[in-house]
Amino acid sequence: MERYDIAIIGTGPAGLSAAVTATIRNKRVLLLGSRDLSEKLEKAREIRNYLGFPAVKGPDLAAAFGRHLDEMGIQITEKRISAVYAMGDYFVLQSGEEMLEAAAVILATGVTQAKPLPGEEELLGRGVSYCATCDAPLYRGKTAAVIGYSPREESEAAFLSEVCGRVLYFPVYPQETHLPGSVIVIREKVLEIGETEGGRVVRTAEREYPADGVFVLREAIAPSRLVPGLETEAGHVKVDRSMRASIPGVFACGDVTGAPYQYIKAAGEGNVAALSAVKYLDEMKRNNA
Amino acid sequence: MERYDIAIIGTGPAGLSAAVTATIRNKRVLLLGSRDLSEKLEKAREIRNYLGFPAVKGPDLAAAFGRHLDEMGIQITEKRISAVYAMGDYFVLQSGEEMLEAAAVILATGVTQAKPLPGEEELLGRGVSYCATCDAPLYRGKTAAVIGYSPREESEAAFLSEVCGRVLYFPVYPQETHLPGSVIVIREKVLEIGETEGGRVVRTAEREYPADGVFVLREAIAPSRLVPGLETEAGHVKVDRSMRASIPGVFACGDVTGAPYQYIKAAGEGNVAALSAVKYLDEMKRNNA
Repeated sequence: MERYDIAIIGTGPAGLSAAVTATIRNKRVLLLGSRDLSEKLEKAREIRNYLGFPAVKGPDLAAAFGRHLDEMGIQITEKRISAVYAMGDYFVLQSGEEMLEAAAVILATGVTQAKPLPGEEELLGRGVSYCATCDAPLYRGKTAAVIGYSPREESEAAFLSEVCGRVLYFPVYPQETHLPGSVIVIREKVLEIGETEGGRVVRTAEREYPADGVFVLREAIAPSRLVPGLETEAGHVKVDRSMRASIPGVFACGDVTGAPYQYIKAAGEGNVAALSAVKYLDEMKRNNA
Repeated sequence: MERYDIAIIGTGPAGLSAAVTATIRNKRVLLLGSRDLSEKLEKAREIRNYLGFPAVKGPDLAAAFGRHLDEMGIQITEKRISAVYAMGDYFVLQSGEEMLEAAAVILATGVTQAKPLPGEEELLGRGVSYCATCDAPLYRGKTAAVIGYSPREESEAAFLSEVCGRVLYFPVYPQETHLPGSVIVIREKVLEIGETEGGRVVRTAEREYPADGVFVLREAIAPSRLVPGLETEAGHVKVDRSMRASIPGVFACGDVTGAPYQYIKAAGEGNVAALSAVKYLDEMKRNNA
């Protein structure tokens, strides 16, 4: 299996900036995330404090970022990472059933703005899942409930509908859904996930929906879940001024490291994280020589 | 005297980014430095990792920064600050004989790449000075030696020539000098500053030049000299992740806080320093209310 030098998870300003700097430093970079870049950035009406771009619209800044990647030949790999495991001198990144490898990892996954639902954390791994690709086979022919926090999650729900007997989809966003006809869309405020005899239940403000499994799909997974054993503080990755996290070889940048949630701060941190990762790789190489 | 909310010292990417964010937050900002922006930036041939500007020339990036300031109506005040004094709930900034006031200070003075000359620190305040405007009157009619680290220092030497009897100018750069005819330009490698009976002496690789006073003029003053009592580490301002320095109300960003010396890192830190200064001011206001 190809082992990358640096895997960067996230394609907001932090991840892109890290990818640009790591590429300049001749590292083999695996940049993982959405080719549409940051959803938050795409939606931003006007950004006034990204130095060099006075009063720029979010999509225009995203386009400038995209041109920067293109000009440097940096590709985005559209894979969703559900877990990162430290193996000693390298890391394994799980994407569905596929395993990827990298010598260092930069987390640029942004901030999870949604709080976990009541019941979500307690039932995780026991009927509650964050990964449709990983856990769909468990619910073959059964009923799956999907709580989707953005339209991007709809493709996961569509995939589930091919495997499961019945899919209930709870959109936690105002946009119209585009889903296969077999998916039942329920526009009710989700209050909690509960247990019933032999199954799970999604409780909304209006009623209860029993299901065999519940998928909670958000753009960002809490970093402590993504990287088991990683130190966090109030949900953010704990880093030092060099953007080093608590596990050697893991670095973080951008919103995932905490406020202020600002594009230029994220881009600056991405640069620092990449240079620290490069330094880490060089030191590892020297120690192994 | 007008008291500014935030004085920002330095007009490289860190200082400009801080000014942009502080202005957006409706603070009265005093931005101090050169209107030519960062000399280092102006000289940069190509910058490849300022996200959004692929492979940009230094002067082009500086021009984009300038347009950003113009569009927001941010002015640069071309004053050189020789000292910052903490007065309790505000700061006094000394510029020659003029005193300026601000409730918070952001240091974005860049990095002093030159090491102090042998003898420089020992004789500071005893015949060695960093500020022509401040100390010229001490050498009225006498001989002053000026060691200038960039062409920008020539205006100080020209001013000294109006006050002192004789000015020797040692350029520590290759460019041609543009100085009044009375200034004696000496292109020899300066080795140290020494003491003689009744005066000082500049020793070059070739000979000794006696003088009554020696002015050492560099773009950046060491931060521990600029702000008495400020904690530094290997010459850099010690800051936390919020860009707070050891004195409440003092913040720092960019190269002055240490490596990596990168434009996008500096701009990101400027944004964070400004937001932390805004928070500091808001808290002060609340406590005084």
